[in-house]
This record gives sequence, structure tokens and C-alpha cells, in this order.
Amino acid sequence: METAGGGGESKSDSSCSSSRLLTLHNALIVTMDPQSRVFRDGAIVIEHNTIIAIGHSPQILAQFSSLPSSQLLDLQGQFLLPGFINTHVHTSQQLARGIADDVPLLTWLHNCIWPYESNMTPHDSYISTLLCGIELIHSGVTCFAEAGGQHVSEMARAVELLGLRACLTESIMDCGEGLPMAWADRTTQHCIQTQKELYKKHHNTADGRIRIWLGIRQIMNATDLLLTQTRDTAKELQTGIHMHVAEIPYENQYVANNRGVDHGTVAYLEKIKFLEDNLLAAHTVWVNPGEISSLSKASVKVSHCPAAAMRMLGFAPIREMLDAGVCVSLGTDGAPSNNRMSIVDEMYLASLINKGREVFYKGTTDPTALPAEIILRMVTSNGAKSILWDKEIGSLEVGKKADMIVINPSSWSMVPLHDCISSLVYCMRSENIQSVMCNGEWIMKDRKILKVDESAVISMAKHASVELMKRAGITVPSRMTIL
Amino acid sequence: METAGGGGESKSDSSCSSSRLLTLHNALIVTMDPQSRVFRDGAIVIEHNTIIAIGHSPQILAQFSSLPSSQLLDLQGQFLLPGFINTHVHTSQQLARGIADDVPLLTWLHNCIWPYESNMTPHDSYISTLLCGIELIHSGVTCFAEAGGQHVSEMARAVELLGLRACLTESIMDCGEGLPMAWADRTTQHCIQTQKELYKKHHNTADGRIRIWLGIRQIMNATDLLLTQTRDTAKELQTGIHMHVAEIPYENQYVANNRGVDHGTVAYLEKIKFLEDNLLAAHTVWVNPGEISSLSKASVKVSHCPAAAMRMLGFAPIREMLDAGVCVSLGTDGAPSNNRMSIVDEMYLASLINKGREVFYKGTTDPTALPAEIILRMVTSNGAKSILWDKEIGSLEVGKKADMIVINPSSWSMVPLHDCISSLVYCMRSENIQSVMCNGEWIMKDRKILKVDESAVISMAKHASVELMKRAGITVPSRMTIL
Repeated sequence: METAGGGGESKSDSSCSSSRLLTLHNALIVTMDPQSRVFRDGAIVIEHNTIIAIGHSPQILAQFSSLPSSQLLDLQGQFLLPGFINTHVHTSQQLARGIADDVPLLTWLHNCIWPYESNMTPHDSYISTLLCGIELIHSGVTCFAEAGGQHVSEMARAVELLGLRACLTESIMDCGEGLPMAWADRTTQHCIQTQKELYKKHHNTADGRIRIWLGIRQIMNATDLLLTQTRDTAKELQTGIHMHVAEIPYENQYVANNRGVDHGTVAYLEKIKFLEDNLLAAHTVWVNPGEISSLSKASVKVSHCPAAAMRMLGFAPIREMLDAGVCVSLGTDGAPSNNRMSIVDEMYLASLINKGREVFYKGTTDPTALPAEIILRMVTSNGAKSILWDKEIGSLEVGKKADMIVINPSSWSMVPLHDCISSLVYCMRSENIQSVMCNGEWIMKDRKILKVDESAVISMAKHASVELMKRAGITVPSRMTIL
Repeated sequence: METAGGGGESKSDSSCSSSRLLTLHNALIVTMDPQSRVFRDGAIVIEHNTIIAIGHSPQILAQFSSLPSSQLLDLQGQFLLPGFINTHVHTSQQLARGIADDVPLLTWLHNCIWPYESNMTPHDSYISTLLCGIELIHSGVTCFAEAGGQHVSEMARAVELLGLRACLTESIMDCGEGLPMAWADRTTQHCIQTQKELYKKHHNTADGRIRIWLGIRQIMNATDLLLTQTRDTAKELQTGIHMHVAEIPYENQYVANNRGVDHGTVAYLEKIKFLEDNLLAAHTVWVNPGEISSLSKASVKVSHCPAAAMRMLGFAPIREMLDAGVCVSLGTDGAPSNNRMSIVDEMYLASLINKGREVFYKGTTDPTALPAEIILRMVTSNGAKSILWDKEIGSLEVGKKADMIVINPSSWSMVPLHDCISSLVYCMRSENIQSVMCNGEWIMKDRKILKVDESAVISMAKHASVELMKRAGITVPSRMTIL
């Protein structure tokens, strides 16, 4: 590794096969590397899909001076960041946005979400993932973790096409009250077997952008056998497990009543040795100090979904988890529980609700809680650790994959820029996300989605969602006098 | 008044002076009228600055069939709504966005906001208001209530130019600890006198778009004399009073200790007969049930600012206030306490935090709390009532002013549209706001601000804010390793 001066470095000299090189320069680069380096006038060089140099523009341009102008991109002072990582996304639910707003949780689940998801065709899953992916890309996301959805092969097809990176997971349940007919007869063996097949078929496909994880929808829909076999299968396949954990007080009560532990899901998962560093626990709202300590000791990762938490679940003890050393990242959850699938908005929310939550503990809010730089870590390096992909993504460093986003900070929504880091968290909107690159390829340029036809997807989604609602027998009551 | 059929009505027939007419048709019109009417294929006719007909497109088009095509605008299925009303805006603070993020409240106020505001020149106020106005317009706001700022004449100049409607208010303090030198010697008489002069100079100017209100920054900076004289002057001038009320527990404690009441600001304001229907109380977070009842009885209006509340103040008892019949609207507060000046985001937040807040009272969140249709009222008809302007704005009805916005619901951020009302509150972003009309004139068309040069304002704002920070001696510490 050669130091290019000014704190920058590069992996190769200008003699490497230059036709595959691209240099982005004249950018404020927020690297999110372990030293939290920010290059005010920064440049980055990528070769194929990998970052080979990063540093100050003058030095990098001098070092790569032989490049033709077609391989130089002047970012004109815009910001360059690692692509954001959204660690809890229900791609299957995108067509269900707005079907269950302002209704109680059980109505939401039993009358809307389950009928909707259980009536999805593979093609619905494909369209839903495409539409969701478009929203993710517009929000600066280059990689996401599927929370567990329907028809994973169709999800994978959409992700491959969109150019995104993802950990895909099937929605897995092998027991539980009131399940839709289509799901009620799935055995444990069937659940494990289909996931193994999905792994074989899709893991490490799409130029390495797709990985297959194992899923547990939630503990009330999982037998002990499913939990232990999932744990063992994940070890065998060396992959992760994505599970909704401790979402509502009733869940903990159910577990305490039925499974012989004193608190709830986390206590039980510890008892059966399910807590490991490959577990991504989504939401994790109702955990006590002992359980937080267990999560930390086992290096379990937590995906905090602020919007869904506020609407449906409760305030997760994020400050306490961070203090205990738990790796916390951010997720949007699904469209019917948020309803914005924007990690940009989720950053803003994460800050606000965790500052506000302190009022119930300290008597006043704490404006210093969860500062901007911590939140930016949650959607970059912590996100990458959470999905076991941090060797390749989560920061802009030599040797890592070229997953990055260009942000225009000169619009009315971010000016003036007295604090460029807090601006990214508190001021930025999705409309500031200008261009998005994943694995060395532009997937959005100047706000235009490149790999799919956005308006065609929107048309298909409108049609498919209406048909799906009819099939599922879901109607949405009117709130006003429609004439 | 003539009924045009299908629930629509019009004020005049097609024989009126047709050159001043404009018909917008083929829109989903959410009127926000008392009957909550929504026209699926709606049309609206405006004459000069006034709505003269509203109803279904076929009937309206037939009735106004003689109009030339230049006076017909096909909205192609987009949504048409009343312009949003933002009832708590610090226009003076726009240049201070990001100067005090993640710092304690007293640092925020004494080391950042007061030095910043007290060092503003009239020109800074002008630029700050222009920049703020651009953000408001992009967020669908046609009318706002200034929370109390610097150099009101310059504010008025900017508002007139932008084409917005506003209630403008000076920042008024006549006592208090630690005030900047420039403000410390202002007498009560001076405070009242300057406001009377501003009223004389600007009230009802800019084609009736500007009104002047009286201000009280907060009770800890107001003598009893100022409070009573403000109350009486407002009566004399028949205008409103904008005041920050019960923001933090310390404020109530201070009032209880120094002014002989058992609880806080609201109890004291009631005691001195300050609570009247022309009082717009901003934030109003720390109020007890007795005080809520007092606010309701006196028809005091409350501006709820969810983002600022979460970050700095606490959870306002909005459900309780609405249950008690208090008219609650929404505000963004100022850029250094939010930092997004988007009423669109504030709607989303208002829903989430008020659903989430219930967890501390009921043990679980309440997803049914503060439903979308109530929130939409807050930013339209309740907003208009709050600023005493509801005879002219706040809904799309015959005889009201043509303050309205066109929303594009067919983008990735809002599709699919299973519930058009909840979509407006939970899914819409500022980028869905397509066009904005105030007082019969387009002030934004197809996302282009029409009355000022947006990029010129941004350049001026960048420059002015840097100079102002230097003058005020404010520096923002770096959060990362800047190279």
C-alpha cells in the first residue's frame, strides 16, 4: 500500500490496466473509515468494482494523470459517501403501502398483512421488490437486508436487475395461531429445506451482490426445532439469521408464559444458545438490562427501525444498547408500517426520537443523545457489520467495493452548511441523493434510475397491487366524503 | 350560489369577466371543507385571487365552456389541496441551520441562537427569510406565522417578493438574564411602540397577504407590563399574539417560583387574563389537565412543532388537547432546532410521535392515535383558524382565496395509492409538491420557484451566513477528522 500524501492512500500505481479505472474528484468525501477521515477536496479511484485509491484531489489526479477525460468525473464540490445500508426491509410489502394505516396492530397483521402476503404471486414479489428497490436507491441505499418475504427467487431476480446488493431471506414460520391457509401446513423440515435450496441457487450470485440468509419471522411463529435447526444450518452455511425480536410486550409475555424464562424472547434465545454474532435482531424494543448485556456478549446485531417503532412497537433502548457495545444499525421496515422506505428519513427520526425518549427517564429531552456522527455510522459501517459484510462495504477505503453515493448539498434543503456531518443526518432529504453506485456500476445517475424503467415499474405496481388487494379481499375504508 | 351538480357549487356563471378566469381540472381535489369533500375528478375555477367554482370536471368544464385553452389547466390526475399553513416559523434563523446541533439547550440558546440573532443585519433578515420562504414553498406552504424574529420590515419585503402569505411578528423581550447587549436595554414602551409602527407600515400590505401580529418571545423575557400591554394592544389593533408557551419544565418552575401560581406559564397567563382566542401558543408542551382546560375555554390556539419538541422540549399532550377541543395546528419551528423546515415532514412526525407517546401511558403505542385526516386538518383548516384567517384560507371553497398546491402522487414515493389521504400524510415528501399558488398567483410551477431566483438566494445565503457567524463569534466544532 502506497501513501499518496495528505492522509490518502492507493493500492496500485498508474500503470494498472487503466481502461477499467474511474476517478471521481473534487468532492467532499466522508469516508466513514475507522479514523473518521473526511477529505475536503477529495478524490477516489476505482478499478472495476474496487476502490484502489483515495485521498486529496491534487495528489490523486497527479498520480493518475494519464487517464483520459472520459474516466475522470468532476463532482464539483458535491459530497461522496459510502452507500447507505438498510438492515431491515420487507421488499414483499411495498405493494401494500397504505393498506393498514391508523389501525390497531392485530387488525394490521391478521386482516391486512397476512392476507396480503399470503396471496402474493411470484410476479407480485418481483414487482414489489423492483418498486421497493427504486425507493431504496433514491434514498441512497446500495445494500439492504430483507426482513423475510415471499418468493425469494423473484426478489433475487429484481435485485440482480436493479444493481443493488442484498442479503435475501425467506419469511419463515412453522407454527402459530391464525396463519393463512397457504402457510398453515409448512413443516419445520420444509422451512429448512427450501432455504437450503435458495442458498444453493442464489448465494453469491449477481457478481457477488446477493447473499442468502436464513429467516425466523418471529418467535411466536417458530417451534424450538425450527430455531435450533436454523441456528445449526446458519453455521453450516456460514451465513446470517434475520429475525424479528421482542417487538411488543405481548410477545415477551407469551414467551415467558410458554417457554419457562423470566423475561422474554431474548432471555429465551440465550437459553437455547441462539444468540450468536450472525444474528440480526430486528426492532428489539422490549429488552431489559440483562438482555441487553446478553446481546452485547454474544455480538448480536440490532436493526433499529425508528418509524415502525414509534407507530407500532415502542421506544427501543438504543442509548443503552450503544452504551453496552451492541452494534446498532438502521432499517426502514416495510411500507405498510412506515410508510416511507427512506433510510434518509430514518436517520432524522432516529436522532429525534432517541433525544425525545430521554424525557421519560431524565425529565427533559437530551439534545446531545445519539449525535449525527453516530447515526451516520449506523447506516454505513455498523450496517455493514450487522450484515456480516464489513470486509467489503460500509466505508470508503482502499480494497473495499465501490458502493457509494453522490449527494448534492447546495440545494435549499441543506444550505447553509455550517456542519456538514449533522446536515447529512438532519437536513438531507432523498432529493439530495444525486447518484448511486453499487459494486462499481452506476445504478442511479442525476436522479435517474439506470437499470430499470422507473415509470414502467410504477405502472406495473399500480396494476398488480389493485389485483392483489382484490384476491386477498382487503378493502381500505374511506376517511373523507369521496364524490 | 348556484349548485353545479354532483355536490359542487359555483358563485358566478360563465358570463363573468372571463379573461381573469383560470380553470384547473382533472384533479383529485381534497377540499378540506367542513364536509371533508374529495372530488375524484374535480375542477376548480378561480377569478383573480378567489375561488368561484368547485365541483366535478365535466360539470365545471361545461359551465365554463367558453374559456380559451390558455385558461384551462389539465392536472392529469394530480392532487389539488389547500396550501399548507405552517404556524410556527423562525424565518430569521434560516441562516443558522446546523450551528447548534447535538448541544444542550442552554448552549443552544446562549452561545449560539442569541449571539446569532442579535448580530443579524436587516439584510441578513431579508436573505434568511428568502431562503426560508423557498423551503416553505417547496414544502407546499402558502402561508406561515412568524414566531418572532429580527427586522420585520425586511421579512415583509422578502415575503412580498416570494408571493407568500404570512403573519409577521417581531421578537419581543423586555427583560431576562443573559440577554445580548443589543437587546438588553429595550423598554416595554419601545417594544410596544415599534410593533405599532410595524403594524401601521405593513399590516394588510402585499395585496392583503401580510398581516402584522404582536410577539412575546417567552414569559421569562416578558414583564407583566409587557404582557398586559401586548394583550390590550392586540385588542386595539384587532390582531393576534404569537408566544412561546410552556416549552420546558424549568420555565414552569420559574413562573411558579416568581409569579405566585401553582403550576406554570399557562396558569399565570390565565390569571392575568392573557388567554384569549387571538393567542397562538407555540409548543405548549408542559401543560397539566387544568391548563389544557383553560386553553380550551379561552379558545387559545396551539402550534405543535413535533421535531423541535422531540429534540429540545418534550412530548406535548396533543391527544389530550384535541380531546379537550383545543385547535391544534403544526409548525416547523426554526432551522437550528429542527433542521428541516418542511411541514410535509412535520405531518409524518406528528403522526409517529403521537402514536409512540402512548406507550408511556398505555404500555403500548397506539397506531390509531392522531389519524391522517386529523393531521391534514392541522395543516389546513386548523392552521387557518390558528392564525385568525379562516374566513379566507384553509380550505378550497367558493369565496375563499386561491391558495393551493398541486401534488404529484404518481412517483415511487407514493405509489401504490391504496389510501389517498394517509398517503398525503405518511408517504408524501416535499419532492411530490409540484406547484404552489398563493392568492391566485403561481409562486412555484413544476418545482421551479417563480418569484425569486433560487440559486441567487442560495449563493447570497451561503455568503451572508459565513459573515454573520464571524460577526457573532460562533464556531462549530468538527465531528470528524477533516483533512
